[in-house]
Amino acid sequence: MPSGEDDLIARYFKPIATDPGALGLTDDAAILKGGGDDLVITTDAIVEGVHFRTSDPPETVARKALRVNLSDLAAKGATPAGFVLTLALRELDERWLAAFASGLSDDAITFDCPLLGGDTVATPGPLTMSITAFGRAPRNGMILRSRAQPGDRIAVSGTIGDAALGLAILSGNVTVSDPRICEPLIERYRIPQPRVHLAPAVRDHARAAMDVSDGLAGDLAKLCRASGVSAIIDAAAVPFSEAAREVIEQGKASFASAVSGGDDYEILCTVAKGHWDDFAQAARSAGVAVTSIGEVVAGNAAPKWRDAKGGDIALPPLSYSHF
Amino acid sequence: MPSGEDDLIARYFKPIATDPGALGLTDDAAILKGGGDDLVITTDAIVEGVHFRTSDPPETVARKALRVNLSDLAAKGATPAGFVLTLALRELDERWLAAFASGLSDDAITFDCPLLGGDTVATPGPLTMSITAFGRAPRNGMILRSRAQPGDRIAVSGTIGDAALGLAILSGNVTVSDPRICEPLIERYRIPQPRVHLAPAVRDHARAAMDVSDGLAGDLAKLCRASGVSAIIDAAAVPFSEAAREVIEQGKASFASAVSGGDDYEILCTVAKGHWDDFAQAARSAGVAVTSIGEVVAGNAAPKWRDAKGGDIALPPLSYSHF
Repeated sequence: MPSGEDDLIARYFKPIATDPGALGLTDDAAILKGGGDDLVITTDAIVEGVHFRTSDPPETVARKALRVNLSDLAAKGATPAGFVLTLALRELDERWLAAFASGLSDDAITFDCPLLGGDTVATPGPLTMSITAFGRAPRNGMILRSRAQPGDRIAVSGTIGDAALGLAILSGNVTVSDPRICEPLIERYRIPQPRVHLAPAVRDHARAAMDVSDGLAGDLAKLCRASGVSAIIDAAAVPFSEAAREVIEQGKASFASAVSGGDDYEILCTVAKGHWDDFAQAARSAGVAVTSIGEVVAGNAAPKWRDAKGGDIALPPLSYSHF
Repeated sequence: MPSGEDDLIARYFKPIATDPGALGLTDDAAILKGGGDDLVITTDAIVEGVHFRTSDPPETVARKALRVNLSDLAAKGATPAGFVLTLALRELDERWLAAFASGLSDDAITFDCPLLGGDTVATPGPLTMSITAFGRAPRNGMILRSRAQPGDRIAVSGTIGDAALGLAILSGNVTVSDPRICEPLIERYRIPQPRVHLAPAVRDHARAAMDVSDGLAGDLAKLCRASGVSAIIDAAAVPFSEAAREVIEQGKASFASAVSGGDDYEILCTVAKGHWDDFAQAARSAGVAVTSIGEVVAGNAAPKWRDAKGGDIALPPLSYSHF
């Protein structure tokens, strides 16, 4: 007599569990085959009303939940191998679940990262989910955030600030009516683009790396602290999308809010100068834009942000805390 | 400028992250070294007010959260290798966290299962946590629940029903005043004893296995369904603790409620007759009691529970569903 829970798992999640090690989600555990590689493990929890909005489409909630983990793996130079999911639900809303599973399935296929197992429980509180994702990296090949050295170039992938501006628009804190500006920013907030294709370039050429999830400025400060170094950033070099640039130029949001906002899910890395050309070439081959935004310098000071005239730009307090 | 969250992680969780692969919880991901072994992965979420009571001591909440995963690993014949934890908290209650971390630390040491990484987030809802635990098993050596064959003996470790009776006492559904009866039952509910020492015996001698978390009767039915077999159980052989036996004999709880209740975290396995003596010997060497409670038989019928006279015992509907 299968319960509602078993039914649900069979109907919505078993089709995503394509790896033989998932055992069709019928056992108590999953198997990940060993090998010479190291396994890279990352985990993130997200809560309705905190990390996503109740009104967000379930497909995008699922995709974001998986993608924030894939972004971590990519920044570590790891190739996705699979993930497990725990889901705390208020009720069995089949329509919500079908849409959620459909988004999850699309991305599991897109990123070749199958569901290996999970747990579904009831909660009287907000919908809460947790994903633990696994990647493979060559033995001792995971890229840490603590290995930056003075003289390294600092690179960032893609564009910065789009998601934070998208959230500001969704929250009504920034008013933009032009859909050609709104839509790409909101899309970036809802569906991050984990830079999985950049992972080999990071693995082969970066000295230190992390993904940018809590704002470029704060995350750069973390990378510098972990490495015991400082940095000088050329603010004019920070890559913005056309939409973000327009919002900033219209004075609707500040430069500081764009580089301090969260949810970019780009890769921040430092590259020894001798590796820069190879790194840039590998990124081009991977089809991922990377921009040099500054240089690692010796010292323990907070990173300095310089404007076009060489003056210091003051940024608001940077560390994001959930509490 | 470390945030409250970073402080918290450094103070309470870093000391539990003793494995070099945890990188002191300072990076975005953890490393689990590869090797010839398979990695066994299990994950469980628990929610305040659903899986534990708000009044439960934080130490025992932590220990239970880890132990339910260790129980899964043991039932699969795997040796613990580490775990990641996500924690959704309403507030940073330092006293709660200190006690929680202390319980977690004790068990991480006891079971040689270090914290590898995690994520701490805020929630407006009930405290919710999720643990993903990793174990190692020889290549293709994980014991599945789907390999039972007619003729196998059915074994269960330890004693059955204690935790369910403990919860019934805590909830006021069963009234027992004698502390010699209450206390061990409540203790079993709060702090399961994962049968990690039985893992090698299971790995070497069991044909199919799973841990008993949703009640012996329901879990046996699941194992039989997964294996495409049925079973005949000798109800009189089911191992009860003295405390549980007394509660049942006093008529305060039924046999059915003891074998249908959850949270036993014992191991249920089937063993080919030719392996039985070796299995029993290995269990004795490991210091874990195992009891033969019946036999696997061919067919797709639900397992039959026989009383001392060979009559059928009717059990209530067995499948536990969270919804």
